[in-house]
Amino acid sequence: MKALIYHGPGRRSWEEAPAPRVIEPTDAVVRVDAVTICGTDLHILKGDVPTVAPGTILGHEAVGTVTAAGGSVGIVKPGDRVLVSCISACGRCRYCRVGMFGQCLGGGGWILGHRVNGTQAEYVRVPFADTSTHPLPDGVTDEAALMLADILPTAYEVGVLNGRVQPGDTVVIVGAGPIGLAAITTARLFTPSHIVAVDPAPARLEAAKRLGADLVVGAGDDPAGAIAELTRGLGADVAIEAVGLPETFELCTRLVRPGGHVANIGVHGAPATLHLEDLWIRDLTITTGLVDTYATPTLLDMIAAGRLDPGTFITHRFALDDMAAAYETFADPTATGALKVVLARG
Amino acid sequence: MKALIYHGPGRRSWEEAPAPRVIEPTDAVVRVDAVTICGTDLHILKGDVPTVAPGTILGHEAVGTVTAAGGSVGIVKPGDRVLVSCISACGRCRYCRVGMFGQCLGGGGWILGHRVNGTQAEYVRVPFADTSTHPLPDGVTDEAALMLADILPTAYEVGVLNGRVQPGDTVVIVGAGPIGLAAITTARLFTPSHIVAVDPAPARLEAAKRLGADLVVGAGDDPAGAIAELTRGLGADVAIEAVGLPETFELCTRLVRPGGHVANIGVHGAPATLHLEDLWIRDLTITTGLVDTYATPTLLDMIAAGRLDPGTFITHRFALDDMAAAYETFADPTATGALKVVLARG
Amino acid sequence: MKALIYHGPGRRSWEEAPAPRVIEPTDAVVRVDAVTICGTDLHILKGDVPTVAPGTILGHEAVGTVTAAGGSVGIVKPGDRVLVSCISACGRCRYCRVGMFGQCLGGGGWILGHRVNGTQAEYVRVPFADTSTHPLPDGVTDEAALMLADILPTAYEVGVLNGRVQPGDTVVIVGAGPIGLAAITTARLFTPSHIVAVDPAPARLEAAKRLGADLVVGAGDDPAGAIAELTRGLGADVAIEAVGLPETFELCTRLVRPGGHVANIGVHGAPATLHLEDLWIRDLTITTGLVDTYATPTLLDMIAAGRLDPGTFITHRFALDDMAAAYETFADPTATGALKVVLARG
Amino acid sequence: MKALIYHGPGRRSWEEAPAPRVIEPTDAVVRVDAVTICGTDLHILKGDVPTVAPGTILGHEAVGTVTAAGGSVGIVKPGDRVLVSCISACGRCRYCRVGMFGQCLGGGGWILGHRVNGTQAEYVRVPFADTSTHPLPDGVTDEAALMLADILPTAYEVGVLNGRVQPGDTVVIVGAGPIGLAAITTARLFTPSHIVAVDPAPARLEAAKRLGADLVVGAGDDPAGAIAELTRGLGADVAIEAVGLPETFELCTRLVRPGGHVANIGVHGAPATLHLEDLWIRDLTITTGLVDTYATPTLLDMIAAGRLDPGTFITHRFALDDMAAAYETFADPTATGALKVVLARG
Repeated sequence: MKALIYHGPGRRSWEEAPAPRVIEPTDAVVRVDAVTICGTDLHILKGDVPTVAPGTILGHEAVGTVTAAGGSVGIVKPGDRVLVSCISACGRCRYCRVGMFGQCLGGGGWILGHRVNGTQAEYVRVPFADTSTHPLPDGVTDEAALMLADILPTAYEVGVLNGRVQPGDTVVIVGAGPIGLAAITTARLFTPSHIVAVDPAPARLEAAKRLGADLVVGAGDDPAGAIAELTRGLGADVAIEAVGLPETFELCTRLVRPGGHVANIGVHGAPATLHLEDLWIRDLTITTGLVDTYATPTLLDMIAAGRLDPGTFITHRFALDDMAAAYETFADPTATGALKVVLARG
Repeated sequence: MKALIYHGPGRRSWEEAPAPRVIEPTDAVVRVDAVTICGTDLHILKGDVPTVAPGTILGHEAVGTVTAAGGSVGIVKPGDRVLVSCISACGRCRYCRVGMFGQCLGGGGWILGHRVNGTQAEYVRVPFADTSTHPLPDGVTDEAALMLADILPTAYEVGVLNGRVQPGDTVVIVGAGPIGLAAITTARLFTPSHIVAVDPAPARLEAAKRLGADLVVGAGDDPAGAIAELTRGLGADVAIEAVGLPETFELCTRLVRPGGHVANIGVHGAPATLHLEDLWIRDLTITTGLVDTYATPTLLDMIAAGRLDPGTFITHRFALDDMAAAYETFADPTATGALKVVLARG
Repeated sequence: MKALIYHGPGRRSWEEAPAPRVIEPTDAVVRVDAVTICGTDLHILKGDVPTVAPGTILGHEAVGTVTAAGGSVGIVKPGDRVLVSCISACGRCRYCRVGMFGQCLGGGGWILGHRVNGTQAEYVRVPFADTSTHPLPDGVTDEAALMLADILPTAYEVGVLNGRVQPGDTVVIVGAGPIGLAAITTARLFTPSHIVAVDPAPARLEAAKRLGADLVVGAGDDPAGAIAELTRGLGADVAIEAVGLPETFELCTRLVRPGGHVANIGVHGAPATLHLEDLWIRDLTITTGLVDTYATPTLLDMIAAGRLDPGTFITHRFALDDMAAAYETFADPTATGALKVVLARG
Repeated sequence: MKALIYHGPGRRSWEEAPAPRVIEPTDAVVRVDAVTICGTDLHILKGDVPTVAPGTILGHEAVGTVTAAGGSVGIVKPGDRVLVSCISACGRCRYCRVGMFGQCLGGGGWILGHRVNGTQAEYVRVPFADTSTHPLPDGVTDEAALMLADILPTAYEVGVLNGRVQPGDTVVIVGAGPIGLAAITTARLFTPSHIVAVDPAPARLEAAKRLGADLVVGAGDDPAGAIAELTRGLGADVAIEAVGLPETFELCTRLVRPGGHVANIGVHGAPATLHLEDLWIRDLTITTGLVDTYATPTLLDMIAAGRLDPGTFITHRFALDDMAAAYETFADPTATGALKVVLARG
């Protein structure tokens, strides 16, 4: 089969690789029908994630069809259309038992395209298939489901639910890339009074407006002033960090009111400064987190019920064999306007 | 009457001052029967709290007897024994309506001994008396109640409840001064499996053991190793910061397990470093806060029911007129072993 | 002034009465600009609420203008436009301190038009004005605000929030009168996947559809079957009782899935049967409640932000002097189609 | 091997039966080292649980040693000492994914000694072994662990946690049989101010006092009056029903204060009357539930840490072969004083 293989920093190729097969009784093999590329894949290619060994097939998001299943797999069976989630879950460790699948201690967590071969291929072996895939309800398209492999549950769980967004809140979302936009989309499920998007790029702010931001704050604007005006000087109820830089995190801590929540989604590479000399008295709650995908079944139901339309995140479509072109398009969003690209089996 | 007046950094005196009287219809005047000194009073005297104007009577903790009450005061009446809380609450602003009295927008919050004259005097005017004092149940002594003016609700609300201590948890408390010891005492209300106290001072660790710490970690010890041993390498469920320094806060963020809570009680004067490059993925919840005193009625009931004995925090007793000696004792705990000092009306 | 006076079961008249004045320092007098009639007023007139003494002015919902205020009233002042809430709150008792204003032990709770004179008059004395009225933001009309005096916070707090409606839920609302319709409107703030309305009256089901019910179940239909179909046989996540009869309450307990919530809003006059022989094992949570109005400020903000439009509940408008006609219209909804009627000052 | 076989209402015998073996790859076979008898076993023998087929081996509580494990079992392995829980969990269905193992839709739930052969035997086949057994920490005895097979997690999850017991609460527990006593023991983990036990049997009230009840209310006493006295007339914060009769459930709904919780643990055979005509306005929360055993790992840790000593529930000890005598002793607690009986392998 063909697969996108990482050959060390800066080097990837779409090339022939051995087709996967069931190894453990809990495995399934899934034929990839649709797959996407994540910002994390670009980080891996820059060499930022040294735990990925050269020779690994990348990718941790897919929709596909089960072609084989191990002896103890019982929820999914060959022929089933499934969502392959970015998080694998052993289903039986201390963390899996309490729904914190992202912190799985039994061999799961983020492993696809990281510690084991991933989804950017014609076939993928999925460990712990019963607790790491989601059968697709009728009426949910491959493209819509694919947005639930990572981006939407991440924004929803780590941003919106950790941030405890409530009806009537003023929510500020710092960063309007794909994850920030997914936070706007899923924050709206709670009908906040105001969603404010902050980003220096005008094109992203346009996308933010289209997806439901009420107010956008650009490079030269004053986010604290804009939020003070909406909130009689108090500050936002919730600030969601969707960038991953010290300065955007620190901005979030300044934008919330006493008693507010800062929910960090961004992947950070450097420490931030926490101004405890101001914040110790302000009743702040700050959360960090990796997605657990506990909300994925709910989000799938909401797509089936017509309550959520994640197709709007998809800007470019490719055939699976055009993997190289898809990577180039996704890696240069300023030029291409790419949010999410989808590669589909022909 | 006599009162302890702040005359600017480094200068205080116990001297004659005009007796207070009712100004607003919501005021009460309280005769001070017992009063204590807080670490914050020492900070004020160092000049660290510039919002305190010279000429202010210090003190925000007292137990006393109501001697006069304004026209709309209805809960307390002359003759009542009351606890005067460190937090005054207007009872009608946005924050008071949701029980966040510490963030009162209507003229309350921490005002006694800060923005208005305080409790280190023979009499004190208490604004918003109905929502800022607590009538004392029979059988609760002045001394026990006095520990509820600040230290115990602060440790309980901002440390234990914000940190979501649960039965069976491993709780680490960094700092074993009066607030850290109060956190040990109130954490025990939830029957954690292990309470670990961290402090460089051997005398404080002795006190921590006496109050219920199961394990103490001193200057030369390895707190992370000690906690790893208790938790099969995972880390503590809850870390409570009770010092107020960048390094102790950072230690707390390293000691908790994925999914754990860091509850900051310490009053900080400088920023801390938040290692988001490690923490972004660890499902951490970090809280800060000023006490609201919403738990004070419950803690009073628990004293009356014999479930809590805060008398153990009191190491020294003085007559009210010995205010200068009490300050000197409290300001030098290394030499005196002082935790809380009580000054009582003769 | 003119007022609607209750003269015992079956007897009311719109007649001259003494104008109210400030009695307590916490009182305000409010000129009534808009007022409505509640189903509870009809119950009083039937003699169902013996705690209402003959001679009482009825009504517990109004929007008006403050004309006088007692000496300790500080949040509202003469000239302010305010919402007069169905719940008065002393603001300082044990229940008020935790936001349970409906259970006020200090002389509040539901008192207007019940234990003291109410709002169906040209002027009304409002006890505890600072904690029992809500200043109106600009841009919120009298009519929209009036729907927040009772119906919307009741449906939202006692139905939607007590029922813990979440995004993606299947919510069934039994009873599509004004309160049931308000539950539909406010349940939608959480974007459930499905809202099912159950009522025997076709006109009410039409209104339910108009306000956002996805599925309506009438007299001859099978609610359990309809919900089983939506939920793969499991049952609803939340059932909201908005009728007040034993059989509709029992229906609710049958319609929810294991782990579901039954939130009772209905005012009941008779006991219901709780089938614990089936339900003991089903992980049910059943709640009852009187509105506290803690959510009223949030709902007001949401109207101002354009997130909620309660004007849709108003079917008939009258001049204040047409109180008798308004009562007749409201008392016969089958003939008139009345949901909420508004009487406005000319 | 020998096993206790149900032969229809009133008929049981300790007789030879085929030794179990691994059937599914997720099975383990466990040698029973200690086993107990539950009140539910007596109900089965009375014919109250028709889903138990004649020929079934009874028992759903055991501590033992794994002797064989299926191919996909990974957490436990032959030689491990394990607790066999009353709840089996497939670990992958909708309910298991959210920790509601008692409601497992994938073939688990309460199945041992009910739908499949149980633990009152020399060996037992345990389905879904990885998610249905708990490896025992060193220092936890067989007897202590055995109390976690059913009684303690049931009382803790369904009574104490569902009832939201908090420090300082007044908790009333109606019924002082084994489950009620376990509710007293586990309620104490939250340091309530007062625990009141209600039961007509003086011997049970003695046991309640020994386990930590502060006040006991017997046959001729007035529970409402006793609780009113403790709570200034308000009522209990939490009432836990541990009997399973309509009248004790109804008593619980009368004993709680406005805003209180009624947590039902009792197994009911008949409907109760819910006095909604009084309760609709009282902000009650009523919960029912089957144990999920999500708290079992925590309770095991607490035994290991010395925070919980469940050995106190054990009143009689037998050899495994004395199964008939053990049943007779347990079935007649009035004469024998039996709480829990333990049968251990010789």
